[in-house]
Amino acid sequence: TNASGSSGSGSAVKVRTNAGERGTLRNLTKADLAATTGLNLRDIRNVDPSFRQESPAVLVRSKAIIVNLEHIRAILQADRLLLFEPMHPSVQAFIPELQARLQAESSLLPFELRALEVVLINVCASLQRHASTLSPAVDSVLDNLSSTGVSSFGSDSVQTSLDRLLPLENALNEFLNKVTMIRTAIDDVLSSDEDMSAMYLTSVIQSGHRRRRDEHEEVEMMLENYMKVIDSVHNEISATLRAVKSTENVTQIRLDAMRNRVLRLEVYLNIATVSIASGGTVAACFGMNLLSGLEESPHAFYAISLASVSTCVLMFRGILAFLKFKRIFR
Amino acid sequence: TNASGSSGSGSAVKVRTNAGERGTLRNLTKADLAATTGLNLRDIRNVDPSFRQESPAVLVRSKAIIVNLEHIRAILQADRLLLFEPMHPSVQAFIPELQARLQAESSLLPFELRALEVVLINVCASLQRHASTLSPAVDSVLDNLSSTGVSSFGSDSVQTSLDRLLPLENALNEFLNKVTMIRTAIDDVLSSDEDMSAMYLTSVIQSGHRRRRDEHEEVEMMLENYMKVIDSVHNEISATLRAVKSTENVTQIRLDAMRNRVLRLEVYLNIATVSIASGGTVAACFGMNLLSGLEESPHAFYAISLASVSTCVLMFRGILAFLKFKRIFR
Amino acid sequence: TNASGSSGSGSAVKVRTNAGERGTLRNLTKADLAATTGLNLRDIRNVDPSFRQESPAVLVRSKAIIVNLEHIRAILQADRLLLFEPMHPSVQAFIPELQARLQAESSLLPFELRALEVVLINVCASLQRHASTLSPAVDSVLDNLSSTGVSSFGSDSVQTSLDRLLPLENALNEFLNKVTMIRTAIDDVLSSDEDMSAMYLTSVIQSGHRRRRDEHEEVEMMLENYMKVIDSVHNEISATLRAVKSTENVTQIRLDAMRNRVLRLEVYLNIATVSIASGGTVAACFGMNLLSGLEESPHAFYAISLASVSTCVLMFRGILAFLKFKRIFR
Amino acid sequence: TNASGSSGSGSAVKVRTNAGERGTLRNLTKADLAATTGLNLRDIRNVDPSFRQESPAVLVRSKAIIVNLEHIRAILQADRLLLFEPMHPSVQAFIPELQARLQAESSLLPFELRALEVVLINVCASLQRHASTLSPAVDSVLDNLSSTGVSSFGSDSVQTSLDRLLPLENALNEFLNKVTMIRTAIDDVLSSDEDMSAMYLTSVIQSGHRRRRDEHEEVEMMLENYMKVIDSVHNEISATLRAVKSTENVTQIRLDAMRNRVLRLEVYLNIATVSIASGGTVAACFGMNLLSGLEESPHAFYAISLASVSTCVLMFRGILAFLKFKRIFR
Amino acid sequence: TNASGSSGSGSAVKVRTNAGERGTLRNLTKADLAATTGLNLRDIRNVDPSFRQESPAVLVRSKAIIVNLEHIRAILQADRLLLFEPMHPSVQAFIPELQARLQAESSLLPFELRALEVVLINVCASLQRHASTLSPAVDSVLDNLSSTGVSSFGSDSVQTSLDRLLPLENALNEFLNKVTMIRTAIDDVLSSDEDMSAMYLTSVIQSGHRRRRDEHEEVEMMLENYMKVIDSVHNEISATLRAVKSTENVTQIRLDAMRNRVLRLEVYLNIATVSIASGGTVAACFGMNLLSGLEESPHAFYAISLASVSTCVLMFRGILAFLKFKRIFR
Repeated sequence: TNASGSSGSGSAVKVRTNAGERGTLRNLTKADLAATTGLNLRDIRNVDPSFRQESPAVLVRSKAIIVNLEHIRAILQADRLLLFEPMHPSVQAFIPELQARLQAESSLLPFELRALEVVLINVCASLQRHASTLSPAVDSVLDNLSSTGVSSFGSDSVQTSLDRLLPLENALNEFLNKVTMIRTAIDDVLSSDEDMSAMYLTSVIQSGHRRRRDEHEEVEMMLENYMKVIDSVHNEISATLRAVKSTENVTQIRLDAMRNRVLRLEVYLNIATVSIASGGTVAACFGMNLLSGLEESPHAFYAISLASVSTCVLMFRGILAFLKFKRIFR
Repeated sequence: TNASGSSGSGSAVKVRTNAGERGTLRNLTKADLAATTGLNLRDIRNVDPSFRQESPAVLVRSKAIIVNLEHIRAILQADRLLLFEPMHPSVQAFIPELQARLQAESSLLPFELRALEVVLINVCASLQRHASTLSPAVDSVLDNLSSTGVSSFGSDSVQTSLDRLLPLENALNEFLNKVTMIRTAIDDVLSSDEDMSAMYLTSVIQSGHRRRRDEHEEVEMMLENYMKVIDSVHNEISATLRAVKSTENVTQIRLDAMRNRVLRLEVYLNIATVSIASGGTVAACFGMNLLSGLEESPHAFYAISLASVSTCVLMFRGILAFLKFKRIFR
Repeated sequence: TNASGSSGSGSAVKVRTNAGERGTLRNLTKADLAATTGLNLRDIRNVDPSFRQESPAVLVRSKAIIVNLEHIRAILQADRLLLFEPMHPSVQAFIPELQARLQAESSLLPFELRALEVVLINVCASLQRHASTLSPAVDSVLDNLSSTGVSSFGSDSVQTSLDRLLPLENALNEFLNKVTMIRTAIDDVLSSDEDMSAMYLTSVIQSGHRRRRDEHEEVEMMLENYMKVIDSVHNEISATLRAVKSTENVTQIRLDAMRNRVLRLEVYLNIATVSIASGGTVAACFGMNLLSGLEESPHAFYAISLASVSTCVLMFRGILAFLKFKRIFR
Repeated sequence: TNASGSSGSGSAVKVRTNAGERGTLRNLTKADLAATTGLNLRDIRNVDPSFRQESPAVLVRSKAIIVNLEHIRAILQADRLLLFEPMHPSVQAFIPELQARLQAESSLLPFELRALEVVLINVCASLQRHASTLSPAVDSVLDNLSSTGVSSFGSDSVQTSLDRLLPLENALNEFLNKVTMIRTAIDDVLSSDEDMSAMYLTSVIQSGHRRRRDEHEEVEMMLENYMKVIDSVHNEISATLRAVKSTENVTQIRLDAMRNRVLRLEVYLNIATVSIASGGTVAACFGMNLLSGLEESPHAFYAISLASVSTCVLMFRGILAFLKFKRIFR
Repeated sequence: TNASGSSGSGSAVKVRTNAGERGTLRNLTKADLAATTGLNLRDIRNVDPSFRQESPAVLVRSKAIIVNLEHIRAILQADRLLLFEPMHPSVQAFIPELQARLQAESSLLPFELRALEVVLINVCASLQRHASTLSPAVDSVLDNLSSTGVSSFGSDSVQTSLDRLLPLENALNEFLNKVTMIRTAIDDVLSSDEDMSAMYLTSVIQSGHRRRRDEHEEVEMMLENYMKVIDSVHNEISATLRAVKSTENVTQIRLDAMRNRVLRLEVYLNIATVSIASGGTVAACFGMNLLSGLEESPHAFYAISLASVSTCVLMFRGILAFLKFKRIFR
């Protein structure tokens, strides 16, 4: 139960002991790590900070549990916990919480499982925090889109909402992806009886042999509980994404319906243009420098002006009546 | 078999006995609860009203069944039922039903399973009620959208239907999500023989040891029955959502097709504008203060007016014929 | 082997015997039914006509098989068959078929399984009939949509097809839902060895004890066979729905492409309008009552008229050349 | 090991022997077939040519393997192969191949498995042939759609590609459906140890009793191999369909983007129309037969003409500047 | 442990030995290969370069492991490795890596598993390389699309991004397909205890009999590790594809919203056209060669000109007010 810790360029490592004192920093090479923990290099890569894109994993090996969930990369052993990247802000915030909980905890579980539970609590809280920042932002954009009335459609507020929607949707997708991978990592352990019973590292060391495959009730119940929390985050994000999709879909149809309204209006305006052009042509004809025979008539001006305006009106009504009769437009 | 119940700020609790008398309210702290029921704090969080977002669950522990379904959060034991949040209206309505059924029931099942069945009956009825309020509202909107004739498309009725559709679709999605989670919670129990046989709490207490893994026929049949009800609600809502999607899809295409009709009309109107402008230009030319040599001709006015109108008509027909010949527009 | 049957308001029941004589009608209350068949009330609800929305089910109980598939709601026992809702037209049509087949059948199977096979034959035939009425109607609409040429797009025939498509798509979705649920009900039995071996009710009665879990070859082969028929209906309807989706998708794109063609045309017409208005403005200038100095020129009229028309043509060609040069429009 | 074969109206049958001689045709009724092969009528329906819509199946019965894959409907027994519909062209082409392979094969497998392998080889080759005719046709349409430049969008080539796409997509969907069903049929056998060990018909006849459930290595490896081929066809077709969907999607967006470009252009043209109409109105005002006081001015004509044209230009620039200032259009 | 290798037209083969010396080329016919390795012809087809479209596979046979992953087609045996297509550039690059790793490796694993690990390392690196070239290209296009402001929509940059998007999306789909198939091939082995324990070829040869089904811890951990890498590539590509879909979707809606803005603008322009045409018609009326009685009025010109312009303005405002009053347009 030695308390030690190290931070360096290659692989910064923080070690925590079973006892209550403050963990110290220590620099470990991969080879040291392999020697100390009995893990092979392939396994260590899962917690190596230089492999940033490694996917979340909870791997159970004979003498250690390797955890790579969110910001926490740790190796859990029967008597200590190696926490990597101790300078990362989230990890910095995690260390006092870890110490507090490990000391406070009056649980009957062995050290490695109590440490695992603290890690899971921290990861779940981190996921819930992330979800609770994303959802309201998305909801406000969706509310904005769905409450926009017909009349103000095509306005700036719709545009602004749409401009804000895409990055939010991408953030949701990315977060859902991460939650799904964490979920899969925990589910992989939950669905393997061997893995769960092998997680009692202390018990294996004390008894000297493996536990029976089905002796893992506490681990199973613990994992199931945090699984439920992750499931509920997963459900919430999925539901938000479905709402985004529905809103996008309906917004598109509403924009279409709005466009049809505007197009109807344009048809009226186009008919008006045609009608006025017709009336104008009547006037233009009498403006020709040709003998109409009405040049001296005192009422002709008013008659023809009236005729010109009537042409406008009659054309307008006539075209509409024609379209309605032909069932083309109404 | 003590009858007690309590309501308070921290964790309001209602306790029901096996005997017929009215349950009383009682204030329980989490620690009391853990002591009384033998559950650990992690499990109790599932029924704690302060954790509102916990997902539905039916958890089987050695001395209690923890139920968190819809509005009902309860701990079932061999000789009593702890019902949380007794002041919630749905829970208030549930209490007399619970008492009536527990007394009336002449079933041979032990108390904990009879209580569980009453909870399941209540939850299923609640889900069916919710589904039966959502579906007709959606159906009316969909009927409205799909029955809108071509001629009145782009009208207000389509807009209104679309405005009403989005909140309904979101409500459907949310409800489907809830039903799916309840379904999963019950299915988790149904797919675990250990859980089902461990649900006979009375039998375990009386015999003093666990039941065989496959002794759970009554529980299985009971859960299967309510599972079927939930499945049928799930199916109904899924089918409604599929109908919503189809209607949205086809509505969009119909709006598109309508728009193409209107665009065809606009092309005709544009051709008319071009034609009349051409005819007008003829008249405008003769309106110039220049010598056309026809100034004194007595018939020129009528000839040129006719020419102007003919230009309109010939342009119109000529453009259409040209477009038809070129197979551009017909 | 008593032949009996009953029809009433509460629960209309029809009972069929193993022997060949005509079944009679009988009115049974739920309590009678529970007493006669040894089923509990929860199970009976699956065949109770007053619970219309119950989902399809094949439930195996110790002394009866409960069947709720399509229009057929029946309780099969070792020596009789209770058929509910005997006044329903489909059930009326089923009764003679049932009698004929039960008598004709020279199968070695016990009564309950022969009766089950007759039910499955009837249900499968009903599903195939339904599928064979839906598919051709859909195909005709889809053919209509996909064969509509470009030139007649935006025409009434597309509109009519789209108006007919939505109810057909909804009918397909609803039918697929029903087939899926029937499929699931049968698959639930097929995937449970206990259920299948428990279906040999006669054998259990005669031997006095349960059959071995794996003694169910005839039942399995029988169910698999009808499962295949239902699968083939399911596949056909799914394929039709996929074709509907594809056609909708491509129709939408074709409408879009058509619209782009029409928009191109409108651009030409708009350019023409601009050009002719320019030319008209030239003429209008010379129509002003101002001194142009050309008033007495004998050729000015023709020159300026030509200039006006040239302006039209040059504007038209100039704008097009400009747009082409700028790669905006071609 | 009798070589026989028959073709008739009711059920045309072709029988092949273990020995090398040419198979003969024979007419078999269903009853004969049931008697000869020990199969029940329900099973025979899977190879009965009068049930055209039966879905693909490989059924293992105690004395025969029933195969219905693509065009091949056959009953395989320990000493012969009954091949149905011998007059179908694909089956005609298959018979010599079958004979050649059965004689050439120096495999140690029993007759029924060698025959099954020949059938699988033929079916896989047929599927690969079908896939290799569909894919290039689709690829050429997709290339056409995706390589169409912006400028020629809305052209006939896009329309033609879209017209060709829909039938191809439907053919792909239909073929994928068929491959999936064949895949399922083979997978059903592969996932059942009983079925695979029961396929050694010769061994069962010789030994007189069933094989152990896990004695089926050769069959499993053989089926796995052809499964891989079918998987690869399935993957290819699925990938092609995904490419179709993506191309459709992007094509639609490209059409939209193109439309926006054209609409921008129309805005410019509409602004031009408004501007020229304004300028024309200036000229029209001076064309009124009213006293402007400029009638005798020698330069007024040029001044006002210039003013008219300036009005056009200033309106055009002014409207654009206004829209740009208001951030409405740029 | 003979070191040999061959390259030829029919089937080019490269053989590697357990010992450290350079492998030599050798020409092998299929028959030789079958004789040397004890594999049947069906299995050999998986590594035969002439069957280009074979899907990825890891097949475990009694004396060899057949690997077909990405560019590597190999047969692994207890004492040698046959590597096909040695002239392929990727294979050429692989050979020195293979030699270096096989010699350097101080692992306790037998030769066949060390060789398999080297193959898996190479395949994983190749997939990661491919993913890391695709993702940035896609991201740049997506960033371009999503950052395009409203005002410059319909511009060339959107068009260019869309033109580049389709081939990238197809490349992503194709690559995802390949990764999925490789994933499936490895998962098939991981989910079969028999296959994994049979992979210890050396151990089987030395002991002379099969290993126990559950003796495969090293293989399982090794495969799981590379599975995780492939999973992470799979996740990355899936996430990128989802981002593509979301961006496409939102881009389409943004284009729609933009179009609505432009259409609003067009409505204003159309109203302006109608208004100016109306004003022009007033002027045109007074341009008629008819007696209006105002010919000599000194102020009429200004009055009517003003009236003409006022008509324009009043029409414009009147139409807008009317549309707003009727709630048609605002």
